[in-house]
Formats: sequence, C-alpha cells, structure tokens
Amino acid sequence: MNASQAPRPATVADVARTAKVSKAQAARALGGYGAVSEPVRERVLRAAEGLNYRPNALARSMNTGRSQTIGVVIAEVENPFFGLAIRGASDALREHGYDVVLANTDERTDAEEDAIRVMLDKRVDGIIASPADAGVTSHLSAAVAAGCPMVFLDRHVPGLDIDSVEVDLRRLAGQATAELLELGHRGIGFISAVQAPTDVYEPGLVLQNSSVADRLGGIRDAYARAGIAPDPRWFRLNAKTAEAIRAATHELLELDDAPTAIVASDSMVGLDVLRVLRERSLRVPHDVSFLMFDDMPWSSLVDPPITVLSQPAYDMGVAAATALLERLRGSTTAPCRRVLEGEMIRRESVAPAHGAVQETAARVGAARETAAT
Amino acid sequence: MNASQAPRPATVADVARTAKVSKAQAARALGGYGAVSEPVRERVLRAAEGLNYRPNALARSMNTGRSQTIGVVIAEVENPFFGLAIRGASDALREHGYDVVLANTDERTDAEEDAIRVMLDKRVDGIIASPADAGVTSHLSAAVAAGCPMVFLDRHVPGLDIDSVEVDLRRLAGQATAELLELGHRGIGFISAVQAPTDVYEPGLVLQNSSVADRLGGIRDAYARAGIAPDPRWFRLNAKTAEAIRAATHELLELDDAPTAIVASDSMVGLDVLRVLRERSLRVPHDVSFLMFDDMPWSSLVDPPITVLSQPAYDMGVAAATALLERLRGSTTAPCRRVLEGEMIRRESVAPAHGAVQETAARVGAARETAAT
Repeated sequence: MNASQAPRPATVADVARTAKVSKAQAARALGGYGAVSEPVRERVLRAAEGLNYRPNALARSMNTGRSQTIGVVIAEVENPFFGLAIRGASDALREHGYDVVLANTDERTDAEEDAIRVMLDKRVDGIIASPADAGVTSHLSAAVAAGCPMVFLDRHVPGLDIDSVEVDLRRLAGQATAELLELGHRGIGFISAVQAPTDVYEPGLVLQNSSVADRLGGIRDAYARAGIAPDPRWFRLNAKTAEAIRAATHELLELDDAPTAIVASDSMVGLDVLRVLRERSLRVPHDVSFLMFDDMPWSSLVDPPITVLSQPAYDMGVAAATALLERLRGSTTAPCRRVLEGEMIRRESVAPAHGAVQETAARVGAARETAAT
Repeated sequence: MNASQAPRPATVADVARTAKVSKAQAARALGGYGAVSEPVRERVLRAAEGLNYRPNALARSMNTGRSQTIGVVIAEVENPFFGLAIRGASDALREHGYDVVLANTDERTDAEEDAIRVMLDKRVDGIIASPADAGVTSHLSAAVAAGCPMVFLDRHVPGLDIDSVEVDLRRLAGQATAELLELGHRGIGFISAVQAPTDVYEPGLVLQNSSVADRLGGIRDAYARAGIAPDPRWFRLNAKTAEAIRAATHELLELDDAPTAIVASDSMVGLDVLRVLRERSLRVPHDVSFLMFDDMPWSSLVDPPITVLSQPAYDMGVAAATALLERLRGSTTAPCRRVLEGEMIRRESVAPAHGAVQETAARVGAARETAAT
C-alpha cells in the first residue's frame, strides 16, 4: 500500500453506482433506516465494503443526536500535570463508551478559539477545557449556548456559570507560605508562566487564570495574616519560556531584598528555577528554600528531594469527566465548583531562613579552615 | 449561562424556519453556493447568528474535499517524549493552516483502532500515528486505502509502505552498549514497557514495536561485536506499570549474574528504576551504572546527573508533519523512512564496572578512618 495513492473518500453516490441502486436506496441501506429489500441491502453493503466506504459519523450523529465523542481542550500538553489529568478523564469517558479527542492550546487564546471551533465542527457531545484567559471567553459561552455542555478543569471563569473541577490551591499556597514565614523567611519569591500585562506583580492586578490567581492569593493571604507587607517584585509573571523563567529567577536573586525562599507555580517552572540555583552555586535549602506546585516522579529523586504542593491530577480528570457525563445524562442541577484537596508533601528543600544562613556560614568557615590546614 | 440548559444544536431547517425561507434556500445561503438573492442571504445569515447555528464542517469538507484538520494518534500522552513531538507536529501543522486533533492510545491496540476510527469519522485530512503493535495494523492500512494519508512517528511497520520518522536508535544503543562493555561491564540490563509475549527476552523473539526492537537490537549487536553472549534474562519486557518496572529491576539485581549496568528504554521506566536503586541503597554509578533513552529536563538535576541517549523529539514531530504536508500536496514519491540522529549525552551515571567498585571501597575506607580519628 502506498500513502501517496490517496483517492477521495467514497461517497454514498459511489456506493449506489457500484451497487447499481438509487442513491436513496443506498442511503437507506447504509443508514439502516426506511424500507429496503434484502438483496438491495446486501448489494449495497458489499459495494460499501469494496469501496472502503465509511459511514458519515456526522449524519449518524444527526439521527441519534450523539457522536459519542468528547473533546478535551488541553492547556499545555507538555505539562505532566495535564498529561495525568487527561489520562484520568479519558479512562472515565472510555469506560462510559465515549471516544476522546484532544486539542492543545499552549495557553494561547487564539489556539483555544481554534480548538473549540474544531471540537464543535467535529460535533463532540461535550467539552472539558482549561480556559487560557478568563477575559476572553465568548467562544466558550457561545459553545455552551449552542448546546455543547462544558466542564472546566483546573480553573473557573468568574461570571461564567459552568461546572468546574479545581484544587484548593489558595488554602494550600497559604499553608505553605505560613510555614515559610514561621521558618523565618520574609522574602518569598513566586514565579509563574501565567500571562499577565506586566512581568512583575503590581498590587490590584487581576490574573485571568484562577488557578494561578489562587496560588498567589494564598501567598498574599498568609503575608496579610502575619502582618507583613511583601515586596510585589517578589512575584513574577509571564515566565512562560525557559529563558523567561531563568531571567525571572536571576532577577529575584539579585534584588536588594532578595527572597530567601522561592515557590514555583508548576513543575516546569520549577525545573528551570532549580537549574539557575545550581548554576549560581546556591544550595537548596541551605542558601535558598525551594518548593513547587505538583508532585512529579522526579521530585523525590533530585538532590535534595523537593517539598511539593501536590494536586490529585488523575482524580481531577476523572471528576471533570464525571461532571460532564452527568450533564450529558440531562442533569439540570446548578453548575458547581468541585474543589479537591491538595496536599503539602514535606521533603528536604525547605529549611529555616536564618538558621540555614548561619549553618551555611559555619560550614563554609569550617571548610576554609580545613583547606588552610 | 447555564451548562445544564443544553438545547440541541440548530439545524439548517431551524435557520430556514426562522428566516422564513425554504430549506434549500437556507442551505445555499449558508453554504455559499448556488443562486440566492441578497435579501434572502442576509435574512438567513441573521437567523443563523441568532440561533448560534454552526455550519456543518463535514458538509463543507465534502465540497472542498478538505477539513483542514490533521489527526495525531499519540502512543502515550504522559510520556514527555511524545508531548514534545506533538508540540513539534502541531506547530508545523498550525503554521500551514491545519487544526490538530489528538487521541491517546496508551499503546493499546483496541484504543488505537478506536482512535483511527474516530479520526476517519471526523474526516481528518491525514493522520500521524505511532503504531502500538506492528502485528495488528489492518485498521491502519484500511485508513490509508480509504484515502487518508498517514505518517508514522517514532517507529515503522515492516511490510507497510508508509512514510515514517524515526531516530537511529539501533546505532545509538549499540554505541552506548559498546562503551559499557569497554568500561568492563559484562551484564547490561535493559528494561522496556514494550508489549511482548514474555516478560523476559527469549532469543528469536520479534518485538512488534520497531523503536524498542531497535534499542534491543543495538544492545545485542554490540555484544555480538564484542564476542560476548548476553544472558537473555538481562532484557526485560512488559514493564508497563510502576509495579512491573520495580519488579523487573529487583529481579535483575537479584540474578546470580546480576547486571552491573542498567539501560532504561525511556524516561518513565528510568524514574522507577532509579527509585528502586535508591531503595536498595545502591549508588549510581559506584554500585550500578545507569543510563536511559530520552533527555528530560530533570535528567541533569538528579544526583548523579544521568547519562542519556537523547532523541530530537520536537524535530521528529516537525518532520512527521512535513512529510504529511507533502503527501497532502499530492506528492507521489515512494514512502520513505526518515531517520534523524540521536545523541549520547555523557553525564555522571556511568562508571567502569570494576574500577568503580574499588573506588567505592577505598572511599568507604577513608570515610571510616576520618570518623575514627
């Protein structure tokens, strides 16, 4: 077989011609509806097989009203958090007889608009999506208005009354920040890929991604509860590429009031932050404490093992699928936000701020003495 | 807006009724073909807008013969190698005006058959796939026969004349194995998730995944060139889950002729192998040398930094997209295998087999002396 020999797909007309029956007869035989004699039916099906005719899924879905396909619009296919969430959603949907088609947006609104359009064009029965920008959602509300149920994964859009599955990130970030403050850290850096009008946080800024807004909100909550005013320059946005993450990390560390702890908004940010800390010969946690959102298989294998704020990604996918299946079964309960529990897993990348500095100084001193003798 | 209010999608009939025109007139106006007066056209388009009518992509594609959509059938959405390859393919396809829909097979043939069926039902213009099992391919050849061009990514199917984009894994695995043999290793373990009839390799076994067959073939080539007969029990297959990878690693290390080096077939296998080595307090590379296929962002951050056999995943995706675009432009050249270069990146997880043991003994002895003084 040769991929370059690409005849156009066979149509009902082709089947009818080959079977020497009318197009209407062929359509009835292929569609399994209306009256058609047995010999005609057999001739049509044989012709269809010979021509590799594929029944038109759309036409079928117009009859049943269902294509048995769900669209999952992924924010970031390379982020293992979404990989695992997709696995959870796919497993649950396949178990209920649904096929799953995916589209990646890379957190770009234009790609998301394309993805939603494609999903609607392909007549999916419902969509799971992680909206890239809560300020640009007309394509999402139009899809729902057109009769396509939707569930948001990882985030919600304020003002859009759509089911969502999220993690209590604000509480989790608040808890982690409170622990860092108790350990004597005053400056806590936060680096996120989230799209924002400025690279450095400014008071009053509204982030258009609720799950990052919750992370930063939790950090600021903890500062407020401790009665400490954080330097907004500690909070870095738009760190989407390796270059941007690296630049943000360097700039944080070069501030006059440089943070003594850094929180990475996700594991992909975390990897580049760790890399910069190594390059600058800063030891974790002795020189800088570090923690990140999302527990990855490698989190416990790096040196030191990383303290993480873990999200139940697989379960989030299952929960999003379950919520969507309920809508497809015709549930008319009010849309709701389902909030799953995240968990702080304490490993060895966080240490007291001043204790650590003293310990480091002592150790460096000792090493110098040893070298001198 | 409320996701539970899910009316059925508007049809051409609904638009015609609202616009107070015939269905044929509405269809002509919406489809942009045939004669229709300007006032009718305007009434129809206004009605379509009011009803959130979405033109039927399939009907449109029947006219143009193209849906401008490419299907990418992913073997393993959680494997970052495929994540990066998909990004490469998507970037290249989007640049040429194509939308991309993805489906995950998790290396399961039944899921792959479903994915191909869905892609054909959704009338994609072409498919990029990584066939799960070279022994079960009738759904792939049927798709090509039905006029859907296809390009294989990461592997080929012997006997199927279809374009593919691969890496020279056999050469790469041979090179790495030769280096390990030169370093004095005689037992080199290999652990792969590849589906096989037995968990332990048996001479003569044919693997139905060419990219894993190439990895193992390269290892066996190097043994043959060195005139050494490897113990087939060193080569472990079916290690698909964390439990299976862990069991395979333990069993390898407990053999009477236990390997002194382990090669992981991909980074996901590698993570669980490393975990077991830690749990058994085996130090890399002093007690066991370790290397894996695929360079991941964390490969250089773990302790010790991991020597890897790197594949240009992003470029592979771009190359697969380019090959498919050529087919879509009507190229009739013979299908070919495009083989990209992989690269061995030497870090610190590989050491001489016996030298390492001696060095370790010396170091432990020195540490004891220091502690005693």
